[in-house]
Amino acid sequence: MSLLVVGTVAFDQIETPFGMTDKILGGAATFIGMAASLLDVETDIVSVIGGDFPQEYLDLMASKNIGLEGIQKIENGKTFFWSGKYRNDMNTRDTLVTELNVLENFEPKVPEKWKNPEVLMLGNLHPLVQMAVVDQLEVRPKLVVLDTMNFWMDHTWDDLMEVLKKVDVLTINDEEARQLSKEYSLVKAAKKILSMGPTTLIIKKGEHGALLFNENNVFFAPALPLDDVFDPTGAGDTFAGGFSGFLAKTRNYSFENMKRAIIYGSALASFTVEKFGTERLAKLTKEELEDRLEAFRDLTSFDIELG
Amino acid sequence: MSLLVVGTVAFDQIETPFGMTDKILGGAATFIGMAASLLDVETDIVSVIGGDFPQEYLDLMASKNIGLEGIQKIENGKTFFWSGKYRNDMNTRDTLVTELNVLENFEPKVPEKWKNPEVLMLGNLHPLVQMAVVDQLEVRPKLVVLDTMNFWMDHTWDDLMEVLKKVDVLTINDEEARQLSKEYSLVKAAKKILSMGPTTLIIKKGEHGALLFNENNVFFAPALPLDDVFDPTGAGDTFAGGFSGFLAKTRNYSFENMKRAIIYGSALASFTVEKFGTERLAKLTKEELEDRLEAFRDLTSFDIELG
Repeated sequence: MSLLVVGTVAFDQIETPFGMTDKILGGAATFIGMAASLLDVETDIVSVIGGDFPQEYLDLMASKNIGLEGIQKIENGKTFFWSGKYRNDMNTRDTLVTELNVLENFEPKVPEKWKNPEVLMLGNLHPLVQMAVVDQLEVRPKLVVLDTMNFWMDHTWDDLMEVLKKVDVLTINDEEARQLSKEYSLVKAAKKILSMGPTTLIIKKGEHGALLFNENNVFFAPALPLDDVFDPTGAGDTFAGGFSGFLAKTRNYSFENMKRAIIYGSALASFTVEKFGTERLAKLTKEELEDRLEAFRDLTSFDIELG
Repeated sequence: MSLLVVGTVAFDQIETPFGMTDKILGGAATFIGMAASLLDVETDIVSVIGGDFPQEYLDLMASKNIGLEGIQKIENGKTFFWSGKYRNDMNTRDTLVTELNVLENFEPKVPEKWKNPEVLMLGNLHPLVQMAVVDQLEVRPKLVVLDTMNFWMDHTWDDLMEVLKKVDVLTINDEEARQLSKEYSLVKAAKKILSMGPTTLIIKKGEHGALLFNENNVFFAPALPLDDVFDPTGAGDTFAGGFSGFLAKTRNYSFENMKRAIIYGSALASFTVEKFGTERLAKLTKEELEDRLEAFRDLTSFDIELG
């Protein structure tokens, strides 16, 4: 049970109606790795950081049993930095700063012993970087999951189409699904997107939950209603980490098991939004996760006798 | 098992990106009654119509075993008329015309034999009209369900607060829940609203499903992902009719049974949006409803082993 993750390891600076952070630990691969580590999955991250990245953050990740072998450190470079501000509804955010820094010329290198992972999770990055990781593997993983965003649809459409042909599962949000498919109805969008390569599609709807589609089935996982969403940053990546981590652990790629994986992803993401950055995830215990999985079950389970 | 409904019986004229109707049969009580009739619940409507209301519409409702005893006909008056246009996203609509007509001086009269219903469903109307119906009953019903909207919060706040004290279940949409509670978080909103009188709150989120709250529990029912939403008019009323009808039929007011009632309401509402007005509901068969209930179960059921 092994999960290879490619994605950013970054500094985030976040402003919400509840407060503002300094530069804190962020990045897609960070959240994905921390989510998967809670499921006891052997995980390694392929990424790049600058000389300014604190050892303390690397130690934190190592303490979670996240493999850092694939993280290149560019001593004279600076770590990728993103800064954003959430509006009062916490659903929309404005990007204040994006400094690509060492990410600009990132050439991913998969460590030798990681060239045959069970599951590959391609976090949101340039599609050519995602493709370069796929190309370095010796054997095709049992499952390839890809996360992307509207930026790559706007600027690197053809590259995105190429890498989509190589993946099993695509995770995007509802607006991105509409942009990618040019369909407003998410059901119609799903049909079109499933003809682009992936056999499974996850549409993330934030506080409105997530939809899982394959050719013949659809499943809906709600988001847990929370007293407050404190900081949504990393929720989608945590979700992806829980999803891909659960599948790497259980090695069962049926639709039924993907349903379970989505519930794990949703449960983990519901913790991430409770504090800034990785703060809540870093302290999460297995007991707390178990309790929350139970809350998800209670939230949606009903029993109707049908004829 | 009897359900008394108060609400509008009306003409609607609807424009959507898919087309435009003439004046067609509409009104909250109409949709509520037709939904409940599909569950074989003895139903009577308290409402008012003008001399212009076609016998053909009354015949249609009678053919569904909806009792029309409580519908006053004002021969020299005109029936309530609403006209609206949906935007491309089908989630927002602009009201083009509202002609209150006979509704302006509506004094509801509950027929003698209907003064002891099992369940009372107060459809969206002036809170004082809703209150007048409550006051005419001989015995308090086992369950009183109230639907309302932002208009009454804006214009008749004090009256609304009074009638809220008399009801068991309130159904409103998410924006209305925020307005009523002055809380953005729906969880916090629910807590506040449950201190205003109702012991149960349903927050309708349209295409994003519905939440059911009581003091200690929360349940989430998704909306069925549809290829197209053709016309959302009446979906909320259909939902309320399915919910209150199911409870009137089963006479079990536990949280577990309210979960089932919400699924029935959601399933029925998913038909209403497939065609203009009551068109789809009028032709719906019990077999189709059963199939859709099954689709709802498949949509949300998962099975996770917890320790």
